[in-house]
Amino acid sequence: MVDIMVEDTITDRDNVLFEAGIKLGALYHQFTGSPVNLRTVESLEAAIAQSISVQPCVENITVSIDRDVLGSKLNDEFGYCELEGRMLNVQIDARYGSAKVHVSMEFNKELDYPLMKIDKID
Amino acid sequence: MVDIMVEDTITDRDNVLFEAGIKLGALYHQFTGSPVNLRTVESLEAAIAQSISVQPCVENITVSIDRDVLGSKLNDEFGYCELEGRMLNVQIDARYGSAKVHVSMEFNKELDYPLMKIDKID
Amino acid sequence: MVDIMVEDTITDRDNVLFEAGIKLGALYHQFTGSPVNLRTVESLEAAIAQSISVQPCVENITVSIDRDVLGSKLNDEFGYCELEGRMLNVQIDARYGSAKVHVSMEFNKELDYPLMKIDKID
Amino acid sequence: MVDIMVEDTITDRDNVLFEAGIKLGALYHQFTGSPVNLRTVESLEAAIAQSISVQPCVENITVSIDRDVLGSKLNDEFGYCELEGRMLNVQIDARYGSAKVHVSMEFNKELDYPLMKIDKID
Repeated sequence: MVDIMVEDTITDRDNVLFEAGIKLGALYHQFTGSPVNLRTVESLEAAIAQSISVQPCVENITVSIDRDVLGSKLNDEFGYCELEGRMLNVQIDARYGSAKVHVSMEFNKELDYPLMKIDKID
Repeated sequence: MVDIMVEDTITDRDNVLFEAGIKLGALYHQFTGSPVNLRTVESLEAAIAQSISVQPCVENITVSIDRDVLGSKLNDEFGYCELEGRMLNVQIDARYGSAKVHVSMEFNKELDYPLMKIDKID
Repeated sequence: MVDIMVEDTITDRDNVLFEAGIKLGALYHQFTGSPVNLRTVESLEAAIAQSISVQPCVENITVSIDRDVLGSKLNDEFGYCELEGRMLNVQIDARYGSAKVHVSMEFNKELDYPLMKIDKID
Repeated sequence: MVDIMVEDTITDRDNVLFEAGIKLGALYHQFTGSPVNLRTVESLEAAIAQSISVQPCVENITVSIDRDVLGSKLNDEFGYCELEGRMLNVQIDARYGSAKVHVSMEFNKELDYPLMKIDKID
């Protein structure tokens, strides 16, 4: 009789998805809440993309903040608002070893939720 | 001749790893930087664990802040410090459909880095 | 003829107001964005109050998260939301030398803004 | 007999110091923890300065991240680090009504602390 221990191997695909998730969670909770208006939004987009780009496994990242949503959230008295998840559109290409994924975050109106999802696995 | 388009299917396993990564990235960038000392560390641990526990796919989470590292980082003049990644030990069980994973974050001395990793996939 | 240099003296009153402002700004931008629901809100309140209490000049702090606003913001699908400024009621007593102040943050409906203000100076 | 109620008046000077404190506390706890390296530091400086500039009472702000400290903190394996208080030099001119102040944050080596202070009151 043989007792076979089947070690569940963790693959590059597993790791790249894990890493891609880390980046989206990090981005969201680091930068939402930042004061922003229409004059400053471009520098915030650039800084977010560059900041997350330095982390492991990130091959490409684009960050876009929805000007329409931003404009609708500006406080009448003070002329600014905070960066919210519903304003963010983020696209990330990540690689780990031989595995590549494209993941994204985009506000989902039906769910009323800034949905993070796996778009494509190579 | 047939041209077969093999659509790469995204599995529960893929999704649970992506979701588990999101949680670790979120936890880290939401809560590091919080003022803390040895009298208040317990409430911070509890709040972090409970906060992340409400997110999708989290079945169990334990958060432990290293008292020795914390003690060594306390400012002499002011008696507190900030929560840093190197103090955090986090264990998360996540589930998506039929897939379960255990992931963790722990400070890795060799890498001098708060390493997030996949420990087990079911 | 005498050239008198009137040095503008910085008083305890000046410093305590500056310090009180720091605490409210810190609290707001450290903790808003935290995932929360009605089961976990109490631990988050406790941790926020304890965290900020360790900082210089804080004599007393109470943090209260509005359950009604929280309840109204819960995502239907996922059962949680993020801590927002409009949910927070914070009261801080700060002291610097001989000067004491009471400052607060509370959502102001007319301004649609989480207003921080000086309530009392001793 | 006269019952004199001496109402303690809150002045523009009081308010401008309170507001200036809020900005430094906000900046610190919003942006420390951001992933950064020497290639991306400039965009982060710009975004921080622009973000805080939209808040009430800010007349001018400069944000400078110390390249030497940053360079010394880069992780050998991963080539980036997190923005820390000890890297930040921030100068803010704030105004409230007729009162103006200059406040700053700079790392104080003796105290081993990112010290925020009032530099000048007009």
